[in-house]
Amino acid sequence: MPKSSDHHGAGATGSIALVGAGPGDADLLTLRAIKRLQTADIVLYDDLAGEDFMAYLHPDAELIAVGKRAGHPSPRQDEVSRLAIAHALLGKNVVRLKAGDPTLFARADEELRAARDAGIAVEIVPGITTATAAAAAIGASLTKRGVARRVQFVTGHDVDGRLPRDLDLAALADPTATTCVYMGKATFPGLTEQLIAHGLSAATPAVIVESLGSETTKILRGTIAEIAARLTIDRPSGPCIILYGAALAEA
Amino acid sequence: MPKSSDHHGAGATGSIALVGAGPGDADLLTLRAIKRLQTADIVLYDDLAGEDFMAYLHPDAELIAVGKRAGHPSPRQDEVSRLAIAHALLGKNVVRLKAGDPTLFARADEELRAARDAGIAVEIVPGITTATAAAAAIGASLTKRGVARRVQFVTGHDVDGRLPRDLDLAALADPTATTCVYMGKATFPGLTEQLIAHGLSAATPAVIVESLGSETTKILRGTIAEIAARLTIDRPSGPCIILYGAALAEA
Repeated sequence: MPKSSDHHGAGATGSIALVGAGPGDADLLTLRAIKRLQTADIVLYDDLAGEDFMAYLHPDAELIAVGKRAGHPSPRQDEVSRLAIAHALLGKNVVRLKAGDPTLFARADEELRAARDAGIAVEIVPGITTATAAAAAIGASLTKRGVARRVQFVTGHDVDGRLPRDLDLAALADPTATTCVYMGKATFPGLTEQLIAHGLSAATPAVIVESLGSETTKILRGTIAEIAARLTIDRPSGPCIILYGAALAEA
Repeated sequence: MPKSSDHHGAGATGSIALVGAGPGDADLLTLRAIKRLQTADIVLYDDLAGEDFMAYLHPDAELIAVGKRAGHPSPRQDEVSRLAIAHALLGKNVVRLKAGDPTLFARADEELRAARDAGIAVEIVPGITTATAAAAAIGASLTKRGVARRVQFVTGHDVDGRLPRDLDLAALADPTATTCVYMGKATFPGLTEQLIAHGLSAATPAVIVESLGSETTKILRGTIAEIAARLTIDRPSGPCIILYGAALAEA
């Protein structure tokens, strides 16, 4: 293996930071995320992380898109890990920039394990997750005393793009929870049918937030039945998060 | 009502921003939170928000502690709202700084409604919530393919400090979820008994993170039964979050 010749010194092992980019608004990056971007030699980034973060990079930093936007081909997860590890072994500071928060629906466990197995120091820098950014954007609290004391996050699609089969529907149909469905625009109509079959009122308030953190953010309010009907007729093109639950009645 | 004489111009109505301070680390503030602090005339802050944020305030900004640390007397929620609204009506930019994220267990709904009823513009600025900051601190993902696809946040104490009676124990005992219990150090032993009675294995991995975001952060790993036993013997003095679920096995 060639010796590293960069500013970390010959032969030094680099590092990997899994950094949360937040929902896409440049001003929802944390200071810690910005610090990691400023000292990164290589940034492997998701499409959904937006582009505003690039302003913080060192001019010599290398940028590699490893996007996973639904419907587009993207590198396999293990190839992303291998790339990050290879650069770290050459002494580079690698930032793996992920939309939202790295610990939620971002497959961080696989990248963490691969890095640890390779003996690379790996850090997680938290980010604003889409659910709380969406709640802020619609001006609503996800919890509400006496109405919603449990908040749950689920992903709306499985590895094959379909509704996961092992969802705990009783938990998701609980009228006293607020539920945030990530990546659910294709499957929410099917999910709604099952929620109603499990006793959740079709009139439960729901909000869909499309393209959060961009200039084209769209917010659509209704009941779960109305949101499901709308998604069936006209599926939004941007990434979406769907929130539902009684706490959103005033959103 | 006297006319406002500050830089917003006589008679102009001010604003209220519910701003998430994150877990306490100054570098986990977002840029947007910092911008709001820099332009604030008044900051009403929780004890748990730490003190590092003060570096960003304008020298003329007024600081009012409205802490809610358990066991200490604190202003009533409606008094905090009344104070924020009164200052906003005088043309001030009010920042209501909350630990973590304002939409999770922060009673933002009550402050939002009071502000809207008073005709005051109110904004939410999201913050890093304690659960994801804790996951980052222990180097673990809260989700894991095939193991944990649902993540849920609950509060461990009711308005009277006891375990809430209307918890959905089936949802909390689901072995395929990752659960984050906010403010649960006093009630987790009781909760654990009920979780085990509802079928969750006593060997389920758990982590308690005390005083996250401070220099005295402590991390304790074990099973839910071990964590519950430890909390029964020796209750930590700092604020705690407890995470449990199979996804944490490698934490």
